[in-house]
Amino acid sequence: MINKKELEYIRSQLTFWEKLNESEIDLIEKNISMVSYSKGSNLKSTGSECLGVFLIKSGGFRVYILSEDGREITLYRLSPNDVCILSASCILNTITFDVHIDAEMDTDAYLINIGAFSKLSSTNVYVENFAYKNTVERFSDVMWAMEQILFMSFDKRLAIFLIDEISKANSTELHITQEQIAKYIGSAREVVSRMLKVFQSDGILEQKRGIIQIMDKEKLRKLV
Amino acid sequence: MINKKELEYIRSQLTFWEKLNESEIDLIEKNISMVSYSKGSNLKSTGSECLGVFLIKSGGFRVYILSEDGREITLYRLSPNDVCILSASCILNTITFDVHIDAEMDTDAYLINIGAFSKLSSTNVYVENFAYKNTVERFSDVMWAMEQILFMSFDKRLAIFLIDEISKANSTELHITQEQIAKYIGSAREVVSRMLKVFQSDGILEQKRGIIQIMDKEKLRKLV
Repeated sequence: MINKKELEYIRSQLTFWEKLNESEIDLIEKNISMVSYSKGSNLKSTGSECLGVFLIKSGGFRVYILSEDGREITLYRLSPNDVCILSASCILNTITFDVHIDAEMDTDAYLINIGAFSKLSSTNVYVENFAYKNTVERFSDVMWAMEQILFMSFDKRLAIFLIDEISKANSTELHITQEQIAKYIGSAREVVSRMLKVFQSDGILEQKRGIIQIMDKEKLRKLV
Repeated sequence: MINKKELEYIRSQLTFWEKLNESEIDLIEKNISMVSYSKGSNLKSTGSECLGVFLIKSGGFRVYILSEDGREITLYRLSPNDVCILSASCILNTITFDVHIDAEMDTDAYLINIGAFSKLSSTNVYVENFAYKNTVERFSDVMWAMEQILFMSFDKRLAIFLIDEISKANSTELHITQEQIAKYIGSAREVVSRMLKVFQSDGILEQKRGIIQIMDKEKLRKLV
């Protein structure tokens, strides 16, 4: 069961709450639960579009598409306090694409199950509006990713990624493999490997097994 | 002025109409006008996100993004009866990207000006919902384009494009330049040129000045 303090928090994040009547509040309170995913786990590839709406408490999700030959393109990442709506896309009938969702780290989230959210969204226009508005926010994220992938030179993209990681980790020692970097920025491992070598010979970084040590942050910044 | 028959049509396309009160209907009727764009014209690059909402009567728009070095990526195309909402994106505050919009052919459209639409959307949740829902439909189009560009082999993409054009033109004689094809499928002219030569030597098509004559539709279909 979700306790009162948690409900308070959930209410503050779901902006449609004030537009719910008593029976709708009752419905949502009865159909919200806490779920946990361990790092790297996939939110069921098939059916992930019909799990319900998540509110992330800790950890984070990565949302991506997958080609037939296994290439991944990261669309966006979700952090604590973010709402994950594409996990309920089966009830949003203008969404005609599928995504995959992974927990990037150990993640705790509140989940409003799909049945309850579907009912609310079909009877309360503010709930439906919340869902579509949130989806459009993700549309903006996707446009940003698309422009990066299609328009930006690869050294710049890799530099931006590394700078992001430094600030997230609050450290210049990054525990990340070339494989993972390739996944996150939608490229191939070989391409990442080649560019990291260029950065290394420029004195920007050094590589050890699974660790990238940034040596010259300023030089990295100048690439952006 | 828009006549009664035209208003009837506009009403049938704008699904929020039945949720408008009398003064809102009055506002919209006073702020809708017919606009015309000639083939190839741009809906003002700067400011195109704040023109208002279009309902296309005849012709069509192409919506695209542009890189700093002038490369275009077509996101989607709009046809008669389609509503163009990104031309009013300045009032949708979860949209943080800009697009360019061109008339692909001579185009007539009804335009609800931005002032009126902004007012309606801020006071009537059904109007706002209509706008966001329509935007999510475009999000689906963009995901489709993105998957094509990033995942699909180039011969397949070009074949799909040509098959589309045959069915649109209802003819196997396509009046289109390599430059235009490159724009539409988000590639470079040289790449298109190379692949068209491959198709030509396979007996799929023949090229004359500005004309592509499809010789073997079946062979083209097999590529898809």
